[in-house]
Amino acid sequence: MDTRFDHRRSALLNLLGSSRVATLLVTRPANWFYLTGFTGESGALIVSKKGTTLVTDGRFMVQAKAEATGIHIRQQEATLLESVARVLRDLRARRVGFDPAHMSVTELQGARKASGRRLEWVPVAGTVETLRMRKDAGELAQMRKAAILAGEIIDFAIRLLKPGVSESEVAAEIEYQIRKRAAGPAFETIVAFGPRAALPHARPTGKRLRKNELVVLDLGVILGHYCSDITRTVFVGRAPKRIQTWYKAVLEAQGAAISSAREGVACRDVDAAARRVLAGYGLDHLFVHSTGHGLGLEVHEDPRVAKGQERRLQSGNVITIEPGVYAEGVGGIRIEDDVAVHAGRTEVLTRAPRDLIEL
Amino acid sequence: MDTRFDHRRSALLNLLGSSRVATLLVTRPANWFYLTGFTGESGALIVSKKGTTLVTDGRFMVQAKAEATGIHIRQQEATLLESVARVLRDLRARRVGFDPAHMSVTELQGARKASGRRLEWVPVAGTVETLRMRKDAGELAQMRKAAILAGEIIDFAIRLLKPGVSESEVAAEIEYQIRKRAAGPAFETIVAFGPRAALPHARPTGKRLRKNELVVLDLGVILGHYCSDITRTVFVGRAPKRIQTWYKAVLEAQGAAISSAREGVACRDVDAAARRVLAGYGLDHLFVHSTGHGLGLEVHEDPRVAKGQERRLQSGNVITIEPGVYAEGVGGIRIEDDVAVHAGRTEVLTRAPRDLIEL
Repeated sequence: MDTRFDHRRSALLNLLGSSRVATLLVTRPANWFYLTGFTGESGALIVSKKGTTLVTDGRFMVQAKAEATGIHIRQQEATLLESVARVLRDLRARRVGFDPAHMSVTELQGARKASGRRLEWVPVAGTVETLRMRKDAGELAQMRKAAILAGEIIDFAIRLLKPGVSESEVAAEIEYQIRKRAAGPAFETIVAFGPRAALPHARPTGKRLRKNELVVLDLGVILGHYCSDITRTVFVGRAPKRIQTWYKAVLEAQGAAISSAREGVACRDVDAAARRVLAGYGLDHLFVHSTGHGLGLEVHEDPRVAKGQERRLQSGNVITIEPGVYAEGVGGIRIEDDVAVHAGRTEVLTRAPRDLIEL
Repeated sequence: MDTRFDHRRSALLNLLGSSRVATLLVTRPANWFYLTGFTGESGALIVSKKGTTLVTDGRFMVQAKAEATGIHIRQQEATLLESVARVLRDLRARRVGFDPAHMSVTELQGARKASGRRLEWVPVAGTVETLRMRKDAGELAQMRKAAILAGEIIDFAIRLLKPGVSESEVAAEIEYQIRKRAAGPAFETIVAFGPRAALPHARPTGKRLRKNELVVLDLGVILGHYCSDITRTVFVGRAPKRIQTWYKAVLEAQGAAISSAREGVACRDVDAAARRVLAGYGLDHLFVHSTGHGLGLEVHEDPRVAKGQERRLQSGNVITIEPGVYAEGVGGIRIEDDVAVHAGRTEVLTRAPRDLIEL
């Protein structure tokens, strides 16, 4: 039997020990997967010292029994929240924790109504996320594989960039290649040509590639449940001086941020390291997003590498470092890699050349 | 200029007229797309008689200005909710509506804090969804195209089903084909072989197809922002008597539900029509999910075609009809089509043969 999940549930109960609750309702799929192995998209998990119960509906019962062993599985009757209330009554819970970021106002209202006045609902934010932020050896091994695959897919994608090909065609080939490698796209692949590269979150269109255009490729892979995320920027032709300078600035900014990303450093300082380099080039006003984000079961998780983020990096954190500059009418340049923070050292998980590629 | 969005915002303000608010905060991407054409994933929309403002962050500013014309675009400063509060102050709003199903407990708390005590936050559920449920002629035209494409992709997928092929390979080919047709998958394609077909929401695995197995193919297409959703079940070999009977039962159940899906009929009665046929075969206990769901900008929207749903179908509704039976260890059978409800008639949008295919 897989004991990882037991250990994680024990760690969660320990963490809860410091709050006022001994029972937690888990409503986010990535969190219940982390705690039980259940990959279904609908349900609710109740973790308590008296045992763990997963409630799910008829569509997921067979799967739940196969995936989430060693816990109680209960088929939803009437509404999900009524079934949750029944489990809480059976546990004789007086207080139950819930994550206010993962329950809508309607859901909390429904939960209160279903459980009656005697049960107290206590907001307890981010406990499972706190555990998920620090990847264990098994998770890191899987994330290395996902990151290496992302680099291989980027290499493959760059070879598709011939004048005349469309953004959608390149995106289709990328996602097909990801699926053929028994993985899935972690998000909708970004392929942006020319001025469209100025949109950091461009969706692929029918636009065709022309000579002397910038190309931003941003893709992610989910492999064995874990995500990777990588971006490369290519120039189709000989890059003009200005583009060369911008590229150099972004690459230096990324290097500075990666070097600064060490255990104990505040996330805002990693963000500042990238911004400082770009400011030296007079380009910081073109860097319109944050430097990075945590990565794991989800493609955006804690810690956030952004202005104002006081949280300090810990060993086991995996983050992206992805500064960029964007100019309306011209295009954009972004370089992104995935980085694992270890005790005393930092490991870049993605492996793909970072120098400006001119095709 | 595109006046569709103006009309929709006017319709929304009219609908709000009956509640106590004249200003609505819209926090769901599909809803702000419906009202403005903005396709970005991050932001907030404030609709009021005094004007409409979209707040978004630096990553989406260029795109917002291009897509959402005729409204104010404001770049997020500090947090999103602080920027929203500023817009509400500028509008001198005293009460603002929000959808409690689309705001987390944390978000509502943040909004209240940012806007101060003088502003009253009023829950107003499902107003944009009420408008979205009734598709106009332009939306129906687009949904027909998406549905026809889904049928073509199903035909293509069935031809891939040769013994030895894996679920993931078939899913990869399906999604590649969808992308090559300038569309996107509406959800992760379901390809389930043999006993895995007993999982209504199976994710594709490396399992290879063998003779005498059932195959469930469930795929959706987003084309021009609108979704389709189709399922077909195939038997690889000569289907045994039991499978033939089950297939006949599901097909009859689907036909009965489609025939019953008329303007003015309660959604629960459409669900009951399918269930009644299956009960006649003694198979209703194997039908573990609801009969269908609304379809449009999102793949699951109102109305829900399920037990207890009193809502009556209206012209302009588009729903799936997808009864199924599932038996652990054996497999499953599901047949799904998309149906538009018109005044006095029903139109099946998906076009693909429904008889049992034995390969």
